[in-house]
Amino acid sequence: MATLINGKELADNMQSDFTLETAALKKQGITPGLVVLLVGEDKASQTYVKNKELAATKIGIHSEVARYSETISEEELLSEIEKYNQDAAFHGILVQLPLPKHINEEKVLLAIKPEKDVDGFHPMNLGKLFAGVPDRIPCTPYGIMKMFSAYDISLEGKNALVIGRSNIVGKPMAHLLLAENATVTIAHSKTKDLPALAKQADILVVAIGRGHFVTKEFVKEGAVVIDVGMNRDEQGKLIGDVKFDEVEPIASYITPVPRGVGPMTITMLMAQTIEAAKEQ
Amino acid sequence: MATLINGKELADNMQSDFTLETAALKKQGITPGLVVLLVGEDKASQTYVKNKELAATKIGIHSEVARYSETISEEELLSEIEKYNQDAAFHGILVQLPLPKHINEEKVLLAIKPEKDVDGFHPMNLGKLFAGVPDRIPCTPYGIMKMFSAYDISLEGKNALVIGRSNIVGKPMAHLLLAENATVTIAHSKTKDLPALAKQADILVVAIGRGHFVTKEFVKEGAVVIDVGMNRDEQGKLIGDVKFDEVEPIASYITPVPRGVGPMTITMLMAQTIEAAKEQ
Repeated sequence: MATLINGKELADNMQSDFTLETAALKKQGITPGLVVLLVGEDKASQTYVKNKELAATKIGIHSEVARYSETISEEELLSEIEKYNQDAAFHGILVQLPLPKHINEEKVLLAIKPEKDVDGFHPMNLGKLFAGVPDRIPCTPYGIMKMFSAYDISLEGKNALVIGRSNIVGKPMAHLLLAENATVTIAHSKTKDLPALAKQADILVVAIGRGHFVTKEFVKEGAVVIDVGMNRDEQGKLIGDVKFDEVEPIASYITPVPRGVGPMTITMLMAQTIEAAKEQ
Repeated sequence: MATLINGKELADNMQSDFTLETAALKKQGITPGLVVLLVGEDKASQTYVKNKELAATKIGIHSEVARYSETISEEELLSEIEKYNQDAAFHGILVQLPLPKHINEEKVLLAIKPEKDVDGFHPMNLGKLFAGVPDRIPCTPYGIMKMFSAYDISLEGKNALVIGRSNIVGKPMAHLLLAENATVTIAHSKTKDLPALAKQADILVVAIGRGHFVTKEFVKEGAVVIDVGMNRDEQGKLIGDVKFDEVEPIASYITPVPRGVGPMTITMLMAQTIEAAKEQ
């Protein structure tokens, strides 16, 4: 029986601390501010943005959602970002992804001032993470690192496998694990014999975006299993990338979905917004 | 018996092409320019700088070495860099590392204009490599990728192990291999049971800086072995990180030391200087 890593509880505790911290900052005349730029009507994006707004408001962060039509031009969006770069009321700027196809995502991320890039997606912030001098860090892997430390899970010398190589989860996760002296492998869709590879891992981070992909055949007895997946099954129920019921008896620690990694991602976004406010 | 990857020959061929390319650029009124900033009297650094100068001159790149005393202040060095950032005659700026302890290396690298950072060490360039949109790339791993392609060594789906996690070799190497769909592991001094791990690798890149560290116990039959090491043995002879005589009979491809990775590193520096000249 694995110990459940309760992301929801950890997130709630951290957010309570942030509420006190924000109140103290306000007394010094600093109100942390976050603006979320939302383009179009994508339903999932709307939900994510709403959750971010709720968390910010609860903590006392001033938050605004700037909404734009699906047809906004890249140029207009870039000039909106520049406006918020200059606006001292906002310490954090977040552009909700994905963007419509006619807008170059890379250009948009590059336009955000690195100090205000609370999502940690700007190449300068990725480069600092790469170089071992992290500043803003992508929120999902950052939240996972907080889980490891909250549950005293040691990483040094452990074999860690990250399944998935996105810029916002897999790759930054690999760098963070490496910085803690884990031996890190990144696997992906082109990896051969993934179950056998996964079975060697002491630490398994799954961010592949396929519901119930990781079965007990992938998991070594006593492994730590972190599930980044957020998929819907045929009944519309939220499920992870890991077949929880099968894997839980084998693992030493495991995150559930929901109430696992998800709440920590939003929490780290808030942490970095407060951090940015303190720095600016 | 392994096929020898002849880095020297490949480098010579590439440099011959660059000589023609530079001549053609000069006809258009563009002379690629490279300035190397050298602080202090470190003997190894002097040799490296001299080799870079020789290669540049041979190719027709205008090169200058700016020499500074060991006691130069960080501020003075930064203002020298700024001078070269502004100087249109130099398309590439390279600060020879290591720097004296009183100078913050990170600050110095950050001061170079990313377009002129022909070494590929600026966080912005590392971040672009991370994000999968590489611009300037650290020269050693870039040169190794050219070797793979020159010898038609396929990487997709292969298990690649990089031993060493420096910002200038190990980490960028991992990203480049990942971009070619290898399954990539990064090992280092804290890795447990390295020989067993290495023995699973189809592609082995060794950049650990310890002479003859990798013996036949580390190498799978038919593996591709790339040796980044440049060490001196007790007799002062240049040796690699790999015990060549032992490993060569097992490997399918192997790089020698000298005449392996080394010449390719300088070649990619020249490539990126010409590239920068064409862009600017």
